Amino acid sequence: MPRPLEFWYEFASTYSYLTASRIEAVAEAARLEVVWKPFLLGPILREQGLDDSPFNVFPTKGRYMWRDVERLCEGYGLAFRKPSAFPRNGLLAARVALVALDLGFGPGFSRAVYHAEFAEDLDIADSAVISGLVEGFGQAPGPLLEQADTAANKQRLREQTEQARRAGIFGAPTLRVGEEIFWGNDRLGDAIALAVLGPG
Amino acid sequence: MPRPLEFWYEFASTYSYLTASRIEAVAEAARLEVVWKPFLLGPILREQGLDDSPFNVFPTKGRYMWRDVERLCEGYGLAFRKPSAFPRNGLLAARVALVALDLGFGPGFSRAVYHAEFAEDLDIADSAVISGLVEGFGQAPGPLLEQADTAANKQRLREQTEQARRAGIFGAPTLRVGEEIFWGNDRLGDAIALAVLGPG
Repeated sequence: MPRPLEFWYEFASTYSYLTASRIEAVAEAARLEVVWKPFLLGPILREQGLDDSPFNVFPTKGRYMWRDVERLCEGYGLAFRKPSAFPRNGLLAARVALVALDLGFGPGFSRAVYHAEFAEDLDIADSAVISGLVEGFGQAPGPLLEQADTAANKQRLREQTEQARRAGIFGAPTLRVGEEIFWGNDRLGDAIALAVLGPG
Repeated sequence: MPRPLEFWYEFASTYSYLTASRIEAVAEAARLEVVWKPFLLGPILREQGLDDSPFNVFPTKGRYMWRDVERLCEGYGLAFRKPSAFPRNGLLAARVALVALDLGFGPGFSRAVYHAEFAEDLDIADSAVISGLVEGFGQAPGPLLEQADTAANKQRLREQTEQARRAGIFGAPTLRVGEEIFWGNDRLGDAIALAVLGPG
């Protein structure tokens, strides 16, 4: 019996965009269920003494990342435009994603956020941008954004981020199967193999 | 005409051990030539403000790395014992590797260094350990270590490290094909594909 594949993602993360765009197709081929887990990487990085994206703190690594993401998008046939600001603040998107996941369009909404951010260079911290995406799923954005902004929903996101921290997650995307974590878009195949075949 | 695959490695690096152990088999299957490029990651990390391995500076990332390397070694059928000290100083090994590469046993010597370090928990900064490895290739260690210690050979390693820096290398292992670099053991397949198929 295959185990579910947890996909832990942060909306500011370029490599999470890549995984979000391909995980459903790959998981479907392996008959796996994907559990979408938005979280905030910022608090976890701050705990490690990083006040900005590692790709900004370490510019050589950043230059590599942009080239790498560009060529991976080419390979996947995925639209990409280097954003004019990085990282974007993914807080609002993550809160809305939790509500969208309850309502059944969380994966589609999450992919739409990434597309807005990394293919259209839109600011995903702008509630007008997020509202537009919500409308694209036939939902009234007003009530949905209100629900996303409740204390209970904010607390849920904090708890999910805390769960990520406790699971040993330090970057995004992270794939999780049982207690095992795999960091990075590159490791989707390893996570799938573990979910399907089990340990050993 | 396939292009050569450059393998940039640092002896202190766990993930370089993994790549060193499998790159020849993978490259041979693709009929590629591997160019072994030992360099020192320390000076490059120091330039980025890191005075220790990122796996020590960021302990959560470190805990993940040790588990990840352990399970990857299991998967590759590769011996692994978590070293009692990390990172080891790879300076001597890198200097000797340059000489061994000239003499035609550089890849084998490099793999032997990694095995001593990550399967036997030996200190590769100890010249007795390195001498023992050199002897295993039927070479007299005295003259070889002397040659490794010449000003000219030391300068060669500095230059190779400077070449790495100029190529945008910030971690190990890095695979390089033409001007494109791929960081990490995970990306060996991508580098091979580019070397074999060319861009696009």
